[in-house]
Amino acid sequence: MCSSCDHTIHSRHHHFGWDNGIAPVARVAPGATVEFECLDSSGGQLTAHSTLADVAALDFGRINPVTGPIHVEGAEPGDALKITIEAFRPSGFGWTANIPGFGLLADDFRDPALTIWTYDPDSLAPAAFGPSGRVPLKPFAGTIGNAPAEPGHHSVVPPRRVGGNLDIRDLAAGTVLYLPVEVPGALFSVGDTHAAQGDGEVCGTAIESPMNVVLTFDLVKDARLKMPRFTTPGPVTRHLDAKGYEVTTGIGPDLMEGAKAAVAQMVDLLAGRYGLDPVDAYMLVSTCGDLRISEIVDMPNWVVSFYFPRCVFE
Amino acid sequence: MCSSCDHTIHSRHHHFGWDNGIAPVARVAPGATVEFECLDSSGGQLTAHSTLADVAALDFGRINPVTGPIHVEGAEPGDALKITIEAFRPSGFGWTANIPGFGLLADDFRDPALTIWTYDPDSLAPAAFGPSGRVPLKPFAGTIGNAPAEPGHHSVVPPRRVGGNLDIRDLAAGTVLYLPVEVPGALFSVGDTHAAQGDGEVCGTAIESPMNVVLTFDLVKDARLKMPRFTTPGPVTRHLDAKGYEVTTGIGPDLMEGAKAAVAQMVDLLAGRYGLDPVDAYMLVSTCGDLRISEIVDMPNWVVSFYFPRCVFE
Repeated sequence: MCSSCDHTIHSRHHHFGWDNGIAPVARVAPGATVEFECLDSSGGQLTAHSTLADVAALDFGRINPVTGPIHVEGAEPGDALKITIEAFRPSGFGWTANIPGFGLLADDFRDPALTIWTYDPDSLAPAAFGPSGRVPLKPFAGTIGNAPAEPGHHSVVPPRRVGGNLDIRDLAAGTVLYLPVEVPGALFSVGDTHAAQGDGEVCGTAIESPMNVVLTFDLVKDARLKMPRFTTPGPVTRHLDAKGYEVTTGIGPDLMEGAKAAVAQMVDLLAGRYGLDPVDAYMLVSTCGDLRISEIVDMPNWVVSFYFPRCVFE
Repeated sequence: MCSSCDHTIHSRHHHFGWDNGIAPVARVAPGATVEFECLDSSGGQLTAHSTLADVAALDFGRINPVTGPIHVEGAEPGDALKITIEAFRPSGFGWTANIPGFGLLADDFRDPALTIWTYDPDSLAPAAFGPSGRVPLKPFAGTIGNAPAEPGHHSVVPPRRVGGNLDIRDLAAGTVLYLPVEVPGALFSVGDTHAAQGDGEVCGTAIESPMNVVLTFDLVKDARLKMPRFTTPGPVTRHLDAKGYEVTTGIGPDLMEGAKAAVAQMVDLLAGRYGLDPVDAYMLVSTCGDLRISEIVDMPNWVVSFYFPRCVFE
C-alpha cells in the first residue's frame, strides 16, 4: 500500500495491446500520485515453478499486459505527460526466457530456455545466477505509454512515439519521463516490470518480475515532443560498473549486424570462460550487458560494442 | 619522455592509411613498453589559431596520420596483439569541427564549424565550453590498429576487424585491448588521439588533440579473435555521470534513423535551453553524449537513446 498515493490501480485492470477505445479505469488530476499493480510480462503464465514446456506453450495473446488506462485531466494532443517515477515495490520473483523466434540472436538460439530468479525485494541485493554469478538489480517498467491516436488495436510489442514497450532500463526510480500525448486524457498504462535489464534486452526478455510502480503525473502543455525523453537524477550504471567491463565489438556497415556480432562474441567468451551453456550466457547478458554505439561516423563502418559488467563473476 | 619505455616512436614516423607494405619503423619484443608521439587527426593542419577557412580547406589526403608501424616479434596471423594502454601525455590543445559531408547529421549541418579547446594537460580538469559549459576529459586513442592482410593502400577512415579508426572512447588508460593479427609482426600503429568523446562521435570529430601514448605489447598466440575486444579496469563513465543525464530517444525500425532522431532532438533541446547555435550544440554533444541501444528486440521498432551528461551545464 502506498500511503502517499491518491489512487491504486489494481492488476485486474489490465489490457493487452493499445487501443484508445479502452475506457479509462480512473481519472486523475495533474499532480496525482498513483500506485499501479503490474503483472509480469507473461501475465502470470510463468511462475517460480515453470518449466521449458511452459515457455513453449506461452499464449502470446496474453503477453505484456499493462495496467490502466488512466485518464489525466486536461491532457490534450500536443501536450507531454510528465511522469515522475517515484518507487518500485518488487515481488522477489523473476524469470528470463529465450522464446523461439524472438531476440537478437533468434537464428542461433532456436529452442526455448528459462532461468528462474529469486531476489530479496527489500535489499535488492544482486540476484544469484548459477553457482557464481550475481546480477545487480535496478527495477524499472519496460512498458510505459499513452494510447496512440490511431484508432483500433495495436500490438503491445513495438514501442511508439507515445511510448509503450520502450524497455529503457534507466526508467528507474527518480527518473522523470516525458511522453507525447495523442488523445484527450493521455490514457496512460504501465506494465512489463523488470528487476534488471541491460541496454538492448538482447535475448528478448529481462528479469521479468511482477511489481508495483508508483508514479506522479503532471502535464507540460503544448510541449510538441517528437519522441519520449527523460531526465535521470544521477548516475545510471554505478550499481554494476565498479569492476569495469569485458567488451566485445561488431564492426561493419550495418548497426544491426554489428550488434549481433558483438553479442554473439560475448556469449562465446562467457560460455568458454565460465563453462556456461551458450543459451544461459545469452539470457544472462540480456539482464546486465549494454549495447553501445561506439562510433557511427567513420564511413562506411560503424562500431557497436557490448559491455558486460565484470562484477557479475569477479 | 617515458623513463620506463623501451622505445619512443617519434611523430615524424607517421603514415596515412593502412598498407602492410609500409616498412616498420621499429621491432619490439613482447613485453616491450613503447611511447608513441601522436599528431592530431588533422596532421597539424588545424591549430589553436585556426579559423573556419582552415576547416573548409582541409587536405583530406593528410587526415588521421598514425604513428608507426611497429613490428612485434613473433606475432603471426591468428594471434591477438594484447595492448595494455598505460598512459597518455596530453598537449592541452584540442579542436572539434563540423566537416561538411561528414558526421551523423551531415544533411542538417552543411557548413564548416570549429570549436577550439584549451585544457590543463596535468589536472585534466573539465574543459570550458562557452561561458558556462564544462566537458569532462578522458584521453584515448581514436585510431589504434594492425595492418590488414589485404595488400595495397586502405583508407584510414573505416575501422576494420584489425582495429584502426575504432573511436571507442573507453580505450583509455588502464584498458587492455586485444586486436586480431593478420600479418607477421602485426605492424601496429596508433594516432587520432582525443581528449574526450561521447559514444558515437556523432558530429564526426571529438576533442581532437595531439598527445603521446604509452603502450605495452604482448601476444596471445592462436587467439582466433573475430573482432577487437577489450577489458576496462573499472567504471567508464564516472568522470561525467554524477549529475545524471538528459536523454532523448529515436524509435523505429532502423537503428541509424533512430540514432539520427535521438541526436537531432538533443541538439534542439540544448540549443533551446542554453541559447546555443545548433551547430555548437552538435559539436558539444559529440564530445560527451553517448549513443546507447536501449532495446533491439521489440519488433519491428528499436529504441536508440542519446545520453547527455547534465554535469556539463549544471
